[in-house]
Amino acid sequence: MSEAPHLTFNIDAPGLSTGHLAVPKGTDCEALSIPVFSLNRGEGPRLLITGGNHGNELEGPIVARRLIEWLPEVQTCGRILIVPVLNPPAVRAWSRNTPVDGLNLNRMFPGRADGSVSERIADAVCRVLVPEADTVFDLHSMGPRWDSAPAVITHPIADADLMAKTLHLGESFKLPVTLLWEHDQTAGMFDTWVHSQGKVFICTEFGGGTVGFEDLKIYETGVRNGLIALGLIEETVDIPTYRQQKFSQTLETLLSDKVTSPAAGIFEPRCSVLQKVQQGDLIGKLHPMNSVSADSVDIRAPSNSIVCTIKSGAHVIVNEEVAIIARPLKR
Amino acid sequence: MSEAPHLTFNIDAPGLSTGHLAVPKGTDCEALSIPVFSLNRGEGPRLLITGGNHGNELEGPIVARRLIEWLPEVQTCGRILIVPVLNPPAVRAWSRNTPVDGLNLNRMFPGRADGSVSERIADAVCRVLVPEADTVFDLHSMGPRWDSAPAVITHPIADADLMAKTLHLGESFKLPVTLLWEHDQTAGMFDTWVHSQGKVFICTEFGGGTVGFEDLKIYETGVRNGLIALGLIEETVDIPTYRQQKFSQTLETLLSDKVTSPAAGIFEPRCSVLQKVQQGDLIGKLHPMNSVSADSVDIRAPSNSIVCTIKSGAHVIVNEEVAIIARPLKR
Repeated sequence: MSEAPHLTFNIDAPGLSTGHLAVPKGTDCEALSIPVFSLNRGEGPRLLITGGNHGNELEGPIVARRLIEWLPEVQTCGRILIVPVLNPPAVRAWSRNTPVDGLNLNRMFPGRADGSVSERIADAVCRVLVPEADTVFDLHSMGPRWDSAPAVITHPIADADLMAKTLHLGESFKLPVTLLWEHDQTAGMFDTWVHSQGKVFICTEFGGGTVGFEDLKIYETGVRNGLIALGLIEETVDIPTYRQQKFSQTLETLLSDKVTSPAAGIFEPRCSVLQKVQQGDLIGKLHPMNSVSADSVDIRAPSNSIVCTIKSGAHVIVNEEVAIIARPLKR
Repeated sequence: MSEAPHLTFNIDAPGLSTGHLAVPKGTDCEALSIPVFSLNRGEGPRLLITGGNHGNELEGPIVARRLIEWLPEVQTCGRILIVPVLNPPAVRAWSRNTPVDGLNLNRMFPGRADGSVSERIADAVCRVLVPEADTVFDLHSMGPRWDSAPAVITHPIADADLMAKTLHLGESFKLPVTLLWEHDQTAGMFDTWVHSQGKVFICTEFGGGTVGFEDLKIYETGVRNGLIALGLIEETVDIPTYRQQKFSQTLETLLSDKVTSPAAGIFEPRCSVLQKVQQGDLIGKLHPMNSVSADSVDIRAPSNSIVCTIKSGAHVIVNEEVAIIARPLKR
């Protein structure tokens, strides 16, 4: 029988201590040693910060590494566990899914001890790390095929109190967008499982496309604001500047807001992120690639809305999502 | 014996006409029919515009499709052949290399009639299309793993007259950067072969990362300026606005300017594109991923220079290029 997942060090030692989350070997690959950083200042909130759940979203791991540089100096209470890279094989491959088993780690929670590597990582996280936290920040981004406003997103939560707490903490990040995202495939997501434990889960979608220096400053500022809201540090909230503006707004996107491609071809974005569009406005064009006779097709806004996310110029298949539109959340 | 590559239509018909470049089948895949658009206004320059040489650089195909929409109305003379997608299998796969044979099309020129699909595409282009043109615009970009200023690039050309003509036409695009790029692996590149025919070859590197609406306007403006310089259209030159500024500069990068990663890990960019750096300034950080004891490593500028291109936050291997730095070209 394989050994159980465990931490290789005492996370309750004072100050910064480091070690690994040991994920046992399986039939598909050897054991993994995932670096974990514990920042302990005694009583107070217990926070878990994770990055690199998807291997082509490296904003999270970079922000996590930055936190480790300055947080020990300013943390006033509580204990913060930081795991910059949850899914090392996917990060090494710059791949959304785990290359060993082809699975999306973020659809595997709470995982299986005797499963493939993605399932074993999820199992180790749920059994070893989540019980040590009251709140989780999972640092995602939309990935290289999207242009997207930095956002905290949450799916609707049945527990009204947890929903309110989550939205409130999400808004405290002061990112340009806090988005309530109706989604029909939340089974196996990390947030779904943490919610089931009655804990607050913040998912950032830091942006999409290129990971640049200016973008990273925005993301780090957002997480810093979240740490202030939790009372883990005593600093002044700073609203990050995004595209020459300082603002944050709370939006909602419904299943019926999906904008998809009518055919396969090259998608050309014709609007910018956070642009307001009226029903019928041009969002993008779809250029069929193989035919010289098939005209390019206009893709138009289905309703008056704000463009949160738009696909980068890319080849898409028929019915592939090309934009996420939203509108101000009514409470 | 396989049929020879050919065009399926008369490219000398007046006005806009369309058809295909037929690339014969081989042992690895069926024949390809690559859409070609001919815009003929009689005597004058003969230009070939190609996009989609690399399948994850879709700025070129989109700009090419845009040209087809408005060029027929304003073209005053000459003949322009437009091939939005040179490499359909790579574009469908959003892959730099051709998935069928795993080859980089832009290292295969002038190709081989009896080779694999990348070699057959190169052969068809060189035998059928290039003889029909005096000038080639090949629309590339740095791809999703880089942040890069929109540029026309050229490698050094032994023929001084052709070098001067190429730089002059490249500068007429008025993109933020015209870059003379010393490169030690130009064998098999499309430009190397076109130069060997004594023809002018303009390679755009439209940018990197996300393909957004605002970026596409810059790229289209650049190509439009190039068409004005060739005398194919009579319009007013417009210097595109890039990051709130209108400017264009001619730079040079040498083999010795390569900035590479000292180890494997996650690269964090610490400067912006077109930032001026002094020798020793921080360009980026390399975060080892597997170890909690290995510190992050600073990557510093080897000389006083301008950062043309910087790798997006990404996992890199040891000695992988993470930035391209340059300085004003001395003539």
